[in-house]
Amino acid sequence: MQTVSENTCFGGIQGVYSHTSKACGGDMTFGLFLPQEAKDGPVPVLWYLSGLTCTHENAMTKAGAQGWAAEQGIALVFPDTSPRGESVANDEAYDLGQGAGFYVNATQDPWAPHFKMWDYVAEELPALITENFAIDGERQSITGHSMGGHGALTLAMGLAGRYRSVSAFAPICNPTASDWGRKQFTAYLGADESKWAAHDASILMRETGFDGPVLVDTGTNDQFLDLLRPETLADAAFARRQEGAIRMQKGYDHSYFFMSSLMEDHVSFHAEALYAD
Amino acid sequence: MQTVSENTCFGGIQGVYSHTSKACGGDMTFGLFLPQEAKDGPVPVLWYLSGLTCTHENAMTKAGAQGWAAEQGIALVFPDTSPRGESVANDEAYDLGQGAGFYVNATQDPWAPHFKMWDYVAEELPALITENFAIDGERQSITGHSMGGHGALTLAMGLAGRYRSVSAFAPICNPTASDWGRKQFTAYLGADESKWAAHDASILMRETGFDGPVLVDTGTNDQFLDLLRPETLADAAFARRQEGAIRMQKGYDHSYFFMSSLMEDHVSFHAEALYAD
Repeated sequence: MQTVSENTCFGGIQGVYSHTSKACGGDMTFGLFLPQEAKDGPVPVLWYLSGLTCTHENAMTKAGAQGWAAEQGIALVFPDTSPRGESVANDEAYDLGQGAGFYVNATQDPWAPHFKMWDYVAEELPALITENFAIDGERQSITGHSMGGHGALTLAMGLAGRYRSVSAFAPICNPTASDWGRKQFTAYLGADESKWAAHDASILMRETGFDGPVLVDTGTNDQFLDLLRPETLADAAFARRQEGAIRMQKGYDHSYFFMSSLMEDHVSFHAEALYAD
Repeated sequence: MQTVSENTCFGGIQGVYSHTSKACGGDMTFGLFLPQEAKDGPVPVLWYLSGLTCTHENAMTKAGAQGWAAEQGIALVFPDTSPRGESVANDEAYDLGQGAGFYVNATQDPWAPHFKMWDYVAEELPALITENFAIDGERQSITGHSMGGHGALTLAMGLAGRYRSVSAFAPICNPTASDWGRKQFTAYLGADESKWAAHDASILMRETGFDGPVLVDTGTNDQFLDLLRPETLADAAFARRQEGAIRMQKGYDHSYFFMSSLMEDHVSFHAEALYAD
């Protein structure tokens, strides 16, 4: 693992690190914020999964999460959204290939050799950061934006017992019924739709739900509401009386201005779960 | 004036607007955050001047100021750092020409026709925003980063009575004795160094000071400390018993991570002055 940069930030350290990923078959870069409490021992961690076109860097610089994480003594991890590089498959569209991993393990060519973002975020990166940094693997929560909100919700419901709480900003809620999903799942997972269900938050919510609190915020002026389909997730969540809140926030759109505005609330929400016994 | 974008942000509006500037002889773009209180009447305003290579956008997306401004009911203005465009003079160096206006009125060719950033920030833009938005011109304060910290300090001391408070993050404090200053002043203002003094915060502090509180923060790990020369400003400020604080912040560098970490403190500092009677 190599240190790309480390900046003092809210009394802690905002680092960027690169490493050779077995899961993705190449170099991967991630951001990690460690609050000053990490000097004294392992701290809880909140995963932040980013959306289409983002790298590890966007949320790290624009979401305004570090201040609230510092206040709560929580680490933040910012993984990249896909494998990258000249030897990695790509597509001209912004929503397929590099920058658009959708947090699945691709089984279809040309994506299968590198696009294993599920394994990367679920297995490889957690092992790496708990081994190399003062992070308490028993206290993890997860959030994300748009495609990353989809990732956060599907990982949280797919890995029972892993995360204490899950939240999402403007998540893709029902990708099997959306142009943000059907194209990508066909490419990465193949045409057999039965293989897609494990990566659809609304289906997972209907079938299994989440054993802990869920918080989902979407803006009423989000320009991608028809692609996100928050109503489908809400239907499923309320049908099973899922603990948590699914909210529409007046006036907000799909931008980082939305996320930064609600970030204090989400970090506080996760802190409550992470510090509960 | 044209609206480039408007996003709901912390209950207010983060807008971006462009207009034809008389001072700079071409189109200029600026960011303006209006808290929700602006719906009910004019609000105080904090100017944020950016550093080398920045546009109106960097601080607007990375400095994390809007949340604190919203909490205090204060507007934020983010001007660009220079005139721009193909018809505007430029230089290959990152620290001269476009993106490096240094908040002066250039008198030398090829810069003189467009590089009038002092007039733009001191006269034209204040008139524009107080006329078009709910901004109280009687309650203005100013801050900035690096070259923008230099701009904030020199404007505040040069325009007595205009601003109620001034702060700066890692400002260029003594440009007449720094490679961040001598080259640019020679280019923009000519070789006669007597013309430079009005744009050197340390000289202004020695000669006139500021009639109000001053807050300056610089990181102990700032990679540009030798160019910034905070010690010269501190000497001048303490010699005249200037009201305020000039501080070194342990571990921080020159990045936006530094600014965002200290932003709550700076906005609170300005709020106290802006809301005093």
